[in-house]
Amino acid sequence: MPHIELPNLPGIRGPMAFRPETSKPLNELVEVLLRHPNSLTQGERELIATYVSTQNNCHYCQSIHGAIAAAHLNGNEELVQCVKNDFESAEITPKLKALLVIAGKVQQDGKKVTVEDVERARLQGATDMEIHDTVLIAAAFCMYNRYVDGLATVQPQDPELYRSRGKMVAREGYVAANLTNVAPSTTELVTR
Amino acid sequence: MPHIELPNLPGIRGPMAFRPETSKPLNELVEVLLRHPNSLTQGERELIATYVSTQNNCHYCQSIHGAIAAAHLNGNEELVQCVKNDFESAEITPKLKALLVIAGKVQQDGKKVTVEDVERARLQGATDMEIHDTVLIAAAFCMYNRYVDGLATVQPQDPELYRSRGKMVAREGYVAANLTNVAPSTTELVTR
Repeated sequence: MPHIELPNLPGIRGPMAFRPETSKPLNELVEVLLRHPNSLTQGERELIATYVSTQNNCHYCQSIHGAIAAAHLNGNEELVQCVKNDFESAEITPKLKALLVIAGKVQQDGKKVTVEDVERARLQGATDMEIHDTVLIAAAFCMYNRYVDGLATVQPQDPELYRSRGKMVAREGYVAANLTNVAPSTTELVTR
Repeated sequence: MPHIELPNLPGIRGPMAFRPETSKPLNELVEVLLRHPNSLTQGERELIATYVSTQNNCHYCQSIHGAIAAAHLNGNEELVQCVKNDFESAEITPKLKALLVIAGKVQQDGKKVTVEDVERARLQGATDMEIHDTVLIAAAFCMYNRYVDGLATVQPQDPELYRSRGKMVAREGYVAANLTNVAPSTTELVTR
């Protein structure tokens, strides 16, 4: 049961409906980082988000972003699982592996990222913008994961729920998908 | 030296000028959380941000938010230091102490927040909105801290730099204060 009275929606969607003023920049941030045109594909960026959420052991975030990643990767759930378990052995580019090393360090503590980590990414062709975005995606999911877990939100176990919403978010994006979060019945809750 | 080529600005201001598309929601989020009208004072919210940044050992964030907190608290830097070192003995309200316990748990892992932690805050008068905002402030600073440290940004040591900017941000807010970040010379950098 959530620590506070939230609209009855899974994961981050509960607190987002509870507090639209903060959900606006939270949605915009993830939309820019994971959806806007970028030299990293949407699938690659969702894999970074999924990996960090897995390291933070956030069931909702690793499940929904894993599902979105799979939707971008022709439904390849096995690849997503492999990245979560042991990305160095996954069938992804050497550049993405190097960026996942950086993301994993940021998940622990930004100060753990070394010059050598960044050099490895550069040698595999990573640009400054890609390194920047990897650091910020990893940092942002350390926020989203803590937001979801810190309020003890409802986190369903059924993979099919994540699979179907993952396809929808992959198609429509975060801002559009979350417009439906703010149901009329939540109005009185958010003014408490 | 930063891991990527950033505009020559301290702390988060470097990457924010480098990537205006993400700095917009990042600034909006902190503006809503720390500045918008709220039953928690601006000083109290800055103390939560300062405490979490201290636990994450982020020099830039703990220094600038500590300075902003002091500016809101009639220049009481001693109180800020006391909250950083041992908030249970600080001259702050029992409600803020209970919220800092929650923030400290979120900083480690959202799942560490217990029903008892939330009950303690409620007994001291904390509302659902205050508990929500405390969780999100703590989560958000786990992002900002990692963003600042993960890119190895420039983090000056001179307290006077933070003191003077702290007063300015306390007066004008985050969005206004950061408009000056994007100097003309950074234009070409951000399009890389």
